[in-house]
Order: sequence, then structure tokens, then C-alpha cells
Amino acid sequence: MKIGLVGLGKMGNNMRARLKKSGIDVVGYDTNPDVSDVPDYAALAAALPAPRVVWVMVPAGRITQSVIDQLEQVLEEGDLIIDGGNSRFTEDEKHAKQLDPKGISFMDVGVSGGVWGLENGYGLMVGGSDDQVERVMPVFDALRPEGPRDEGFVHAGPVGAGHYTKMVHNGIEYAIMQAYAEGYELLHASDRGIDVTGTFKAWQRGTVVRSWLLELMVRALEQDPDFRDIDGYVDDSGEGRWTLEEAIDHAVPMPAISASIFARFVSRQEQSPAMQAVAALRNQFGGHAVKA
Amino acid sequence: MKIGLVGLGKMGNNMRARLKKSGIDVVGYDTNPDVSDVPDYAALAAALPAPRVVWVMVPAGRITQSVIDQLEQVLEEGDLIIDGGNSRFTEDEKHAKQLDPKGISFMDVGVSGGVWGLENGYGLMVGGSDDQVERVMPVFDALRPEGPRDEGFVHAGPVGAGHYTKMVHNGIEYAIMQAYAEGYELLHASDRGIDVTGTFKAWQRGTVVRSWLLELMVRALEQDPDFRDIDGYVDDSGEGRWTLEEAIDHAVPMPAISASIFARFVSRQEQSPAMQAVAALRNQFGGHAVKA
Amino acid sequence: MKIGLVGLGKMGNNMRARLKKSGIDVVGYDTNPDVSDVPDYAALAAALPAPRVVWVMVPAGRITQSVIDQLEQVLEEGDLIIDGGNSRFTEDEKHAKQLDPKGISFMDVGVSGGVWGLENGYGLMVGGSDDQVERVMPVFDALRPEGPRDEGFVHAGPVGAGHYTKMVHNGIEYAIMQAYAEGYELLHASDRGIDVTGTFKAWQRGTVVRSWLLELMVRALEQDPDFRDIDGYVDDSGEGRWTLEEAIDHAVPMPAISASIFARFVSRQEQSPAMQAVAALRNQFGGHAVKA
Amino acid sequence: MKIGLVGLGKMGNNMRARLKKSGIDVVGYDTNPDVSDVPDYAALAAALPAPRVVWVMVPAGRITQSVIDQLEQVLEEGDLIIDGGNSRFTEDEKHAKQLDPKGISFMDVGVSGGVWGLENGYGLMVGGSDDQVERVMPVFDALRPEGPRDEGFVHAGPVGAGHYTKMVHNGIEYAIMQAYAEGYELLHASDRGIDVTGTFKAWQRGTVVRSWLLELMVRALEQDPDFRDIDGYVDDSGEGRWTLEEAIDHAVPMPAISASIFARFVSRQEQSPAMQAVAALRNQFGGHAVKA
Repeated sequence: MKIGLVGLGKMGNNMRARLKKSGIDVVGYDTNPDVSDVPDYAALAAALPAPRVVWVMVPAGRITQSVIDQLEQVLEEGDLIIDGGNSRFTEDEKHAKQLDPKGISFMDVGVSGGVWGLENGYGLMVGGSDDQVERVMPVFDALRPEGPRDEGFVHAGPVGAGHYTKMVHNGIEYAIMQAYAEGYELLHASDRGIDVTGTFKAWQRGTVVRSWLLELMVRALEQDPDFRDIDGYVDDSGEGRWTLEEAIDHAVPMPAISASIFARFVSRQEQSPAMQAVAALRNQFGGHAVKA
Repeated sequence: MKIGLVGLGKMGNNMRARLKKSGIDVVGYDTNPDVSDVPDYAALAAALPAPRVVWVMVPAGRITQSVIDQLEQVLEEGDLIIDGGNSRFTEDEKHAKQLDPKGISFMDVGVSGGVWGLENGYGLMVGGSDDQVERVMPVFDALRPEGPRDEGFVHAGPVGAGHYTKMVHNGIEYAIMQAYAEGYELLHASDRGIDVTGTFKAWQRGTVVRSWLLELMVRALEQDPDFRDIDGYVDDSGEGRWTLEEAIDHAVPMPAISASIFARFVSRQEQSPAMQAVAALRNQFGGHAVKA
Repeated sequence: MKIGLVGLGKMGNNMRARLKKSGIDVVGYDTNPDVSDVPDYAALAAALPAPRVVWVMVPAGRITQSVIDQLEQVLEEGDLIIDGGNSRFTEDEKHAKQLDPKGISFMDVGVSGGVWGLENGYGLMVGGSDDQVERVMPVFDALRPEGPRDEGFVHAGPVGAGHYTKMVHNGIEYAIMQAYAEGYELLHASDRGIDVTGTFKAWQRGTVVRSWLLELMVRALEQDPDFRDIDGYVDDSGEGRWTLEEAIDHAVPMPAISASIFARFVSRQEQSPAMQAVAALRNQFGGHAVKA
Repeated sequence: MKIGLVGLGKMGNNMRARLKKSGIDVVGYDTNPDVSDVPDYAALAAALPAPRVVWVMVPAGRITQSVIDQLEQVLEEGDLIIDGGNSRFTEDEKHAKQLDPKGISFMDVGVSGGVWGLENGYGLMVGGSDDQVERVMPVFDALRPEGPRDEGFVHAGPVGAGHYTKMVHNGIEYAIMQAYAEGYELLHASDRGIDVTGTFKAWQRGTVVRSWLLELMVRALEQDPDFRDIDGYVDDSGEGRWTLEEAIDHAVPMPAISASIFARFVSRQEQSPAMQAVAALRNQFGGHAVKA
């Protein structure tokens, strides 16, 4: 099988390598000519056998939109575009509609795995029709982790369902990270001579909190036990926010996931306007001194 | 009526002034000889008519305990000690038991009013017996705000109930402050040309969020509209924490009050160990850059 | 001054009464002929002196849109439509743009006051231009509470700012209600013989938590001290959710307001899918019995 | 090696089986004569070679205290008591002090593993001295999971550290469960034709949220995909609450773990007094109907 792959950044490049290892022929295109296999979109289309499959692996938002717009120009009826980036699920239906008049079909895939995917395989959540899924299955099988297919791959539902389930996955991920982090902070704060790194390490077998994130926590603690070289500044991708927006939209209570998102917001503030307001109120009421 | 008052700090001094204005004779004692009316506890006892009433207005914890221990030495059967400080309610029963063998009785009062109490009167929440309350009522009437007694004074229940209700009062206060503060931060962040101070000001009449804290917020904003001279560093008194501990003990969900307490904890951290852990995890998983 | 008022429900009717009392002539239109002053929109337009002012006071969303569409048909250049309902602020700019080609201008007003507005006046937050505000000021002065204008009225900013500030106002309101509610639940749960109603009553003077909502809480407790006739089922209007969406959009941490919204979501669930999942997990792990 | 084991309930019985399988000789005592190896504490002591090791595996609180009191009567200098139950860490130092005058030493072990421990081994967190740990190591090695010792066992620190780290472990566990549960509820609520069970199943390989709890979630969903036979009623053990109390005590923000605890509190309420209060407030202010 031979597919196109647009976007050869950290993720795309690793995915190309894993695909090739499994015998999938990949023609990669990137705006960076040093890594691109072809000079432009037209050449990409020309290099692929019709009906074509092109996997898009670029940043969500305007860049993804721009890639799809350009692919629309060079692809033709029967071709298939897969958005494997981190697009908001609401984009997927738009893209399917945009491409439909030209007979180009569209599906979405949520891809998990980070820097570990090259070696371990990528967890795949797919949105599209049964036909589409069947058509791309060799690619999915090459990308997903070894073992039973349904433990690392799911046809989650119609177009949009791939990004939707990946979005929820990331919301859950935020809160799990926050869970370990709060536990870490308490162990770190407790003045009881506790072997914090050793404790996290010991949770890896037998305990109910064992997980991949726990293993990564152990790796991190072993490299830098008191996180001396790490600032507590944490970005958030759109997926956590979208999860919360969806929760609001469906009246789903989401206290732990929202807490983990808000903690990230706070982590990036040099000054908290809200806490300035509270300090000002305490000063007004109780004459409590404020720090200037 | 003539009472003793131990502790002539900011609060005690104002309370003495308000009591005197209402014709209550006050003999004040403080470890600072410049403000004390008498040189020591013995002189305080000697200056009061038996059966004596002594109001204690000192910091909670060891200092309150020490004052009660010393009063126990100089007072006698039939005398009454009132703890008007911010003691944990669990202390009150201990103090009552400690003093009982000598026939000294004990009651607790939660006092609200801050720097405004001198002029506006103090909100009073009282724990004790009916007899005790009746005996001290002239003092309570002098301290409480004008208007109907039951709108600024309550005999909340037996010993401990004064501090208990004051504790809950402060827990509520935390969350109300947090509510205004979160609203302020959003208005401040919104890039829509909104007159933030004018908006808070306009909420003072007619709206459902009008309150004393809102008025104080307006005062603060008028003095320093963008809180340029205020750092978002907020202490917390014990009462917020105790409220949360009681909630845990009674299986009472307390998401908003706990949020306001945690926000204060965060406000005082130069570095968040929890967020360092999250940053480390993201780095391990996704290769996301960390700030050093 | 003579204005049109579309929507004569609970709010609109009370507002008409308050306007008339202040000498503002009101021509009311409602789809209910029993309360309407005119039979249709054309008659409404005909009954008003040009340039006309029409205040719209109907449910947000499709109904507001429909009213504006119909007014667009009967009004003419120089006329002004005011949306005083609970529209999302994002609607306001759309409406202004929709009406602009015909020379009809548009402004938005957030109105607080509930059933108390008729007597006490309505807190008003206005979005629009200086000219618009000046033109409608007699109406605002009639509706707002007595006292200084800027304590019950604000020209918050350009079109949209009225609904935006009202939205934030309601978000704050949610969290303040939640604050009192959590405090109430703890006092209610504590087994210490506390006079709960008396305690809330006593907070009305002198304390830092005194507010209008506290007074309403006292009224509610005096009518039904243990809330025997009230189910803990709480709806939420759009404004709380929109506040949270805006917070997400601006990376503003909003733990207390979100907690109050989530508590309302939970209050309406007969069964919590999340808690079913937790119960199932505990059963899988620890063999803990589950309730069927 | 031969040890005593007090408490042959679900956990104790499984642990005895696992110990025996590894060649540790176990004399079990339980108040239930049907499962007990010996009739009383005296017989237990007589059956063990001095210096004795007795592992206590009974419910925390009064029962643990009673067992320790009785063991104190029958044991002698040089003997060692291990509390493997779920005691609060603050109990451990008390027990060590209580037993010290008789020369009986004490250590604490937090044990994780639930119903899976018999087969998979138990995660062990140990508090005590180096000498104690060395003495009991054959027992620990028999109980812990296979694989490197430090991945399923930790000498966490001095007496109390075993229960302390187990407490934090459980706090983390609560929040992780809550994370999956919130994600589940959103997927369940989204009306997009998503294969919810399939999605959770697919997260088991390759994704960052893979964990043991996820595997248990998949088991639960496969047994009962919509949790039709499970009520969303969730108990909480003391350890979650203690974690939160410790966080309060150390000013550690704990928004996600507290959220997961509060969610459990709410899950057990037939009526929420807090939400009754909010409903009452809305009724007072806006005339919103209440459910009776």
C-alpha cells in the first residue's frame, strides 16, 4: 500500500518511519524541503496511485485547514483525506462537507502515543464509515501497537468520533496527571522522612494506581528527584478545553478534569488578578496588610 | 456594668472604645504596658466587681490558652471568661472543662466586623447557656450593630457554637470573595473595552449580587483600579481550613469553599511542586519542552 | 417619552408598570392579546413617534431573534432596538450588523432585579454608544433603583458589553449562592444544637457576609426552616455556562464558579453515570458491593 | 519463617494463602473459630517461635486498637507487631509508644492489591526501621508481586510512613477513578453514535491513559455496558479524607482529589441540603418554581 503523508514534524516523521517498517510505502510532503519527498502538492498527488489516501499530520486550526484546501485542489473523486492531527471534532464534519462535492472523502483519527509511538505503536481512535475504515486498515494496523487490534484501535463512530474520543482521552489524561501531581506535592510537603521517589517506584506493581503515566513519573523523578530543573509552568492543548466545553454543553459535571485545566491556567500566571482582588478585599475589610 | 478585657490589639482596642461609648466600664489588660490599664492579671481581677466577667480577645492557640491559664489563677467561683478570639470550636469545650472545677464558667463568641466594627458594630455569634447569655447581654448589646438584636446577634447554641458558626461564616466569606474575584478576573481579561470598576459600582443597587463585600470591592477598585499596588498573595486564617475539616468529617460536599481555600494556598507558592510534576510528565510523554 | 416594549411576561409586565409610574409612556406588544396594547408589530410601530425606541424583553435565543426579525420589517432608519433579555453577548454584534443596513441601531442591556425590580428598581448594565445611552437615559433612570445613578446603572462598554457584564454578574451570583448553601449544609449537618436560622439571621448586620442574598436566605429559612417543601433540584440559565466558556477561552481559572455550575448539573441527575463508573471500578478492584 | 496473622477476612485469608504458597508458615487467629488456627491470643503466642512476628490485618480504628491491646498482653520483649490494615498514620506512632515499654516493637505496612493480590501479589509500603524491615523481608518478598523488589515494595520511611504513603496512594486512586468516570459520562452523554466500550478498550495499548484501572473499567463495561445494574452510590474509606486533611494541614492545593471525594459524598445523598438552599434562593429572588 502507498499513501501520502502531509506534515513531517516530530510526530509525522516518526509515523512515517513506523509505516515504512511495516511495508507501507509513504510519500511525505512538508513545507520544509529538507525533509519533504516531493516539492509540492501536485507532485504528491502525482506520486500516489488513484484512488489516493493522504494522511494529514499538521497542527490543528488554520494550518490543517490550509492543507485540506490545497489537497482539495490536487486530489480527485474517490480519493480519501485522513486528518490525524489534533483538530476539534467540530472541524471534521465541516471538512467532510467541504470535500464532498468533489467526491473526495474524509475521515478523522485521534492519535495517541507521543514520542513513544515510534517504538510502541500509536493508540488510534477513528471516525468514519465502515468502508473507509476497511480501506485504511493496513495503515492502522501498521501504526497501532502490537497485540489484539481492539486494544489499540477503535472505529469509534462516524466522522468526528475519532477526534471526539481523542479529546475525551486527553481530558482524562489531564486529570490523571493532576492526581499524581497532587499526591506528589503532599508527599513532598510532608516532613516525615519519606522516600518519595522510592514510593512512586514501588507503586508500579501490584497497586491500583499503576499505569503508564506512573512509569513516566518514576522516570522523571529518577532523572531529577526534586524537579530542580523543571519550572511548574504547564501549557494546555485545545483538547482539555474542548472537553470542558462539551461537558458544559451536555450538563455533565466535570470537577476533576476542570480542576486540572484550571491548575494549568494558574501555573502560567505571573500575577493572579483574582487573588489580587481577594487580597484587596481582605485589606479593605480586616486591614490585613497586602504585599505590594 | 464593668468588665475586664484581655488583649488590646487592633480588635480589642476598638471594642474597648465601642463598649465605653455605650457606658460599659472596661478594665483593659495587655502585655504591652503602654496600652494596659493594669499591670498584671492580679490587678485586673482586683479591679473588677465579683462575680467578674472577663472578655479575652487575643490570637487563637497558645496565646489564648496561656491567657486562660493565667485568668484561672486569679479568678474565682462565679466568674465568667468569654473567649471572643478566633479559637477553634474544639478548644471551647476543653476550656469549659478546665475552668469548671474552680467554678469559673466559660462561653465563646465569634466576632465579625473587622476594622469597621468600631463604627458599625460587631456581628456576634455566641455559644453558652441561657443564663450566661442573659448576664452578658448588656455587653453584647453595646458591641452589636444598631437595629433589631437578632439581625446582628445570635445565641447560636451551647459552648462552642459561637466559634463554630463564626467558622462557617468565614468559610462562606472565603467563597464569596472568590466569586467576586473570579468575575473580576474574567472582566479584566476580556478584551472588550469594558468599564470594570464602573460595572462593579453599578451592582451596588438593584442587583442580586449586592453585598457589603461588593461595596468593599468598589472601594478597592476606586483606590487602585488595576490593583497595581497589590500582590495576589493571600493568607488564610484557620477558620477556612477548619470549615473544610468539618465538612470532611460530616461528609458534606464543599466544592466552592474548598476551591477558595486552595486558591489561597496556590497564591502563596513561588513554585508549585504539583505543576512541576505535570510539566515533567508532559515532557516524558510528549517531549514537550519544560521551562528550567 | 414614549417607547415600545415587546414581551409582557413576568419581567416585561413589571417593567412596564415601573416605567409608567415614572411618566414613561409605554406601548406594549405581546403575542398574548389579553395583555397586549396593540394587535401586531405594524400597529406597534404606528403607535410610536419616530425615531422610535423599542425595548425587547423576551426569552433569549430563537424568540429574541424572531422578534428582532419582525421589528426589522416595521421599523425604519433612525429607530433603536434594545435587547433587555438574557441573550448571549455574541448575539448582540450579530443583531447590530443585521439591523445596520436599514439604519436601525441596536443596543443591549443586562437587567437584574428579579421579582423585586418593580419595587426596588432594576440594576442595569448597558452596551452601546454614548449617543444611544444618552437617548435612552430617561428610560434607564426610570427603571434603575433610586440613589446615585452609577450605583445601579453602568454604561459598561460597546454593543455586547451589557450582556457580557450581566453574564459575569450571574456567574458570580451562582458561586455566592453556592457559598451560602455549603455553609448551610454544614450547619445543618453538625450535630451541635445550633440555631441555624437564627445564625443566618444574625449575619445580616455587622458581618462581612451580609448581602441581599443572605436576606433572601433568611426569608426562605423563616418560611421553611428545614426546606421540607423544597427539592434540591436546580436549573441553570445559560449565563453561568457562558461565563465558564468565556473563562476557558481566556484561560481564566474559575474553580468556584465552575463548582457551583457543576453542583447544579448534579442536582438534576437521578443517576450519575460517573458515579456508576466509580462504583463499578471499586467493585472490580476491591470486590466492594454495589447497589443495584 | 513462621509468623502470626490476626484477622482472616477477605484480605487476611488471601494473604495467608499467598504466604503459605511461598513457604512462610502462618498461624492465623480470627474471632471466627471456623477459620482460626488457634482458640485465643495466648495460643497464638504459644504457637510462635520467639522473637515473634505478628501481622495484624483487621479493620482500622477500635478493632485494630483492641487487637494491639490484646497482643500487648501475650507478647514479650523482642516481639514485633505489624499493622497491615488501613489505620490512619497518626495511630502508628501511638502504637509504637504504647508497645515500647514492654520492648515490643511496631511497624506499619500499607497494602494495596484488593481481590487481585492473591494472584498478582500485593503492593507494599512499609514504615519502620532498617532492622525491622530486614527481619520481615521474607514475608514482604512472599507478599509482593513478582519482578524487581523496588517496583512493588518500598521502605517508605520511619514508623507511620507505610500508612502515610498508602493514604496518599488512595487519594490519587480516587482522582484517577474520577477522571475515567468523568470521561465516561461525557462519552455516554454525547449523542454521536460513539462506541463507548470499544473506545475504552482501545485505550489499553499505546495511549497515555492506559493503566490497570482502565483495564478494570473495560472489564466492567464489557460485563454491563451501560451500568444498568449498578447504582451510582459510592462509599469512601478514611484514606481519601485523611489525604485531604493532610493537604489542608500542609497548605497543599488538592482540587482534583477533593473533587473526587466530594463527588462520593454527593453520590450518597438522597437530598442535598445545599441544593435545597440554592433552589430556595432562586425562588426568593426570581420567583423560579421549586420542586416540592
